[in-house]
Amino acid sequence: MVAQLTAPTTQRDWQPIIRALEKAVGKNQVVRRKEELLVYECDGLASYRQRPPVVVLPRTTEQVAAAIKVCHQFEVPFVPRGAGTGLSGGALPVEDAVLIVTATMRQILDIDYDNQRVVVQPGVINNWVTEAVSGAGFYYAPDPSSQSVCSVGGNVAENSGGVHCLKYGVTTNHILGVKLVLPDGEIVDVGGAVGEQPGYDLVGLIVGSEGTLGIVTEITLRILKAPETINVLLADFTSVEAAGATVSDVISAGIIPAGMEMMDNFSLNAVEDVVKTDCYPRDAEAILLIEIDGLPAEVAASRDRITAICQQNGARNVTIAADPVDRLRLWKGRKAAFAAMGKLSPDYYVQDGVIPRTQLPYVLQEIAALGEKHGYRVANVFHAGDGNLHPLILFDNKVPGQLEAVEELGGDILKLCVKVGGSISGEHGIGADKRCYMPDMFSPADLETMCWVRASWNPQGLANPTKMFPTPRTCGEAARSPLSPGLENVERF
Amino acid sequence: MVAQLTAPTTQRDWQPIIRALEKAVGKNQVVRRKEELLVYECDGLASYRQRPPVVVLPRTTEQVAAAIKVCHQFEVPFVPRGAGTGLSGGALPVEDAVLIVTATMRQILDIDYDNQRVVVQPGVINNWVTEAVSGAGFYYAPDPSSQSVCSVGGNVAENSGGVHCLKYGVTTNHILGVKLVLPDGEIVDVGGAVGEQPGYDLVGLIVGSEGTLGIVTEITLRILKAPETINVLLADFTSVEAAGATVSDVISAGIIPAGMEMMDNFSLNAVEDVVKTDCYPRDAEAILLIEIDGLPAEVAASRDRITAICQQNGARNVTIAADPVDRLRLWKGRKAAFAAMGKLSPDYYVQDGVIPRTQLPYVLQEIAALGEKHGYRVANVFHAGDGNLHPLILFDNKVPGQLEAVEELGGDILKLCVKVGGSISGEHGIGADKRCYMPDMFSPADLETMCWVRASWNPQGLANPTKMFPTPRTCGEAARSPLSPGLENVERF
Repeated sequence: MVAQLTAPTTQRDWQPIIRALEKAVGKNQVVRRKEELLVYECDGLASYRQRPPVVVLPRTTEQVAAAIKVCHQFEVPFVPRGAGTGLSGGALPVEDAVLIVTATMRQILDIDYDNQRVVVQPGVINNWVTEAVSGAGFYYAPDPSSQSVCSVGGNVAENSGGVHCLKYGVTTNHILGVKLVLPDGEIVDVGGAVGEQPGYDLVGLIVGSEGTLGIVTEITLRILKAPETINVLLADFTSVEAAGATVSDVISAGIIPAGMEMMDNFSLNAVEDVVKTDCYPRDAEAILLIEIDGLPAEVAASRDRITAICQQNGARNVTIAADPVDRLRLWKGRKAAFAAMGKLSPDYYVQDGVIPRTQLPYVLQEIAALGEKHGYRVANVFHAGDGNLHPLILFDNKVPGQLEAVEELGGDILKLCVKVGGSISGEHGIGADKRCYMPDMFSPADLETMCWVRASWNPQGLANPTKMFPTPRTCGEAARSPLSPGLENVERF
Repeated sequence: MVAQLTAPTTQRDWQPIIRALEKAVGKNQVVRRKEELLVYECDGLASYRQRPPVVVLPRTTEQVAAAIKVCHQFEVPFVPRGAGTGLSGGALPVEDAVLIVTATMRQILDIDYDNQRVVVQPGVINNWVTEAVSGAGFYYAPDPSSQSVCSVGGNVAENSGGVHCLKYGVTTNHILGVKLVLPDGEIVDVGGAVGEQPGYDLVGLIVGSEGTLGIVTEITLRILKAPETINVLLADFTSVEAAGATVSDVISAGIIPAGMEMMDNFSLNAVEDVVKTDCYPRDAEAILLIEIDGLPAEVAASRDRITAICQQNGARNVTIAADPVDRLRLWKGRKAAFAAMGKLSPDYYVQDGVIPRTQLPYVLQEIAALGEKHGYRVANVFHAGDGNLHPLILFDNKVPGQLEAVEELGGDILKLCVKVGGSISGEHGIGADKRCYMPDMFSPADLETMCWVRASWNPQGLANPTKMFPTPRTCGEAARSPLSPGLENVERF
């Protein structure tokens, strides 16, 4: 069963639009055959599908601008898409909109080691950046699980995180500037080569704006010197509370590990069933994977302190991996956790919420209770250090009603995050999936201030409509909100 | 000689406005007597003065909102002011505008050690935060030189930096959320208790917006665990090039010191003349002050590596201070550098530009040449690690023509920063002082996208007019730009 996000609208005559797009970017960069369009009908939020009427595959900033100018001229909306790995449906096509795909913009344009920055096109795959600069001893820090397939442009749109974002920050902390095509086709440069910039911080505004303000066509990234030493610690606990307390205590001790991940009993057994790492003790209620990096002496000192904190909190064993092979072995199960769930269950729905670290034990208990109430198994594999939860709900999309029930459970988990002072998204974005929950987190006035920005940059509502903000048309709860996605809100101006 | 920034405008009848303000916030919180108003006629950019027609001293969010509602009702602009220590004239009064001063909002509202955050009113002085939490082993990282007198609200408005921002980032990296009164008097909450927030990053937009989007009335700050160990290194060099190369090499080695400051020969001699630290060798062409912090083993390792890098670059001596008294002794001269200039010369004009670190030697040579060409002495005391220059131009404001000449020299230095790929402001903001240089850095289209935000949040142009953005009325060069501060630009909507 596949849900339809957008209601059918009045038929548009696509022929002149497609001809204009072909003229703008070249015939072989416009996809219009139904079979070929199928590839683009969903992103990583695979439970929703919508075939786009036409897809454009630009290769340069000028081609993106030319395509958007056609959209602007015909007043047809457009949806930007990177590699299509996003988990919140940010790149989900809209029935009446051109899909502009930046995956074909795959050039690394400049590498400047002296000033530690790299300029890339948006279709460059996340880990290509590190591969390109690792020979010189550098790397690009944001590392979403999908880093071997997701694009930097998509990372910018969703402000992606990853295991190492505890110490190094999410994508927005690593973007110095972007070239952006506005929803009317104009090209602007935002930010630049140095971090400090006067005027409004528009780079921060654009990173995480999910394509609702235009399409990014060049990105200036900050690269970091690769750490000299890396250690990974695996600590196992007989209670989730003890693991949660350890996380708090490590941070309170003034140590910021590169990453601090938690897996619960259900997750680690699922991983062992499928991946067979033989590293994770099956009887542990929770394990922590803690990576520390830096100068050798620094790593040694942190390792000893963290080990002591784990033991004070009742860890049964603390295994330390120093060489690359051993480290990979410990990480293997964590990296394969999502895939392992896929083998245990026909489908899984991954949620993405944030809570204050101190609430970890309470929230994990409540999630278990919610899962029981709704009748679904929930696995927890997540970025414990920054309180970024990823409950994985196992279900079968072929059974009518399960998707809706699982979405309801996911929504209850998000509301729980908000209740304890957290957030409805840590790193996956809002997209099409979670916009109905925005009013749970923001007051109408708070949301309206965001919509002013959207309306001023995107006055006709052409850029990625029906994403990120609730609209009365599709959100049950949000129907009570006075908000609307674009033009309807401009009476203020 | 004092320059007038704003041209006289049509006389406004202030009586009903003042009565309404008195009714809104209480008679004793409205200042209208000419002698009392004198206190507010300038901020840290003391070369410009303008007496405000009336000053409001609110104590609560509701009083700020009530005052702004009066401004909105009478369509009279307002200028926000914190402690008045800003160096770019962001709080400079405007002849026809109410001055709203948040310096009287001085309460620390909440301290949450478990989640490492503090909620303050905007008038709280920067180092009060650290004083309040240091007993529990925490501190607030952004440390502008003026931290004993500047307010957190002003830091937010100007996105202030400081010595320790090399490692820890500027103000924007430490603000989790704000309560903001919009230019129509509405109160909104932006951001929140956890770092990851969905929707547009409006916190990033507001931090550094210099009061042009409203007035911040509550700020949720991130506090950090105080480092266990701190060392300060003083290295002296016989050439500026060698000191500059050391800065690059330290960063390239993957070490990010807490701070890395440079003083040139002229500055260090000025400091020794006045402060007599007896620490700085008078024959050095440049000295570096490098602070490293962290766990003891980490500090020891970094200290040895940095010492070796200094020596490889020809440092004559590297002095290391580990205990608090010795550290303060090394820092004393740097902290007193601006004041020392004030004793050497009747006035000084401090500029604030950013350059890529690799350009340090070239830019310092060029600044010396520009100083010679204009006939003024320029001292350089600055945050070398992040390429944030602070050339101090010595002059006498009583001599007609000197202020203008010095401003021209300052402008030439900023243009030089832009030429090498840098920025016209690192941490002092644009304010009234540098808005004419914005077109040197941004294209008309780039600036216009910022003005869209301003126009959408501040459609009547009431919030801090004549600041941050160039306007044809007062900027010679900018007169060729199509930009305008508020309403004039809204034809797009």
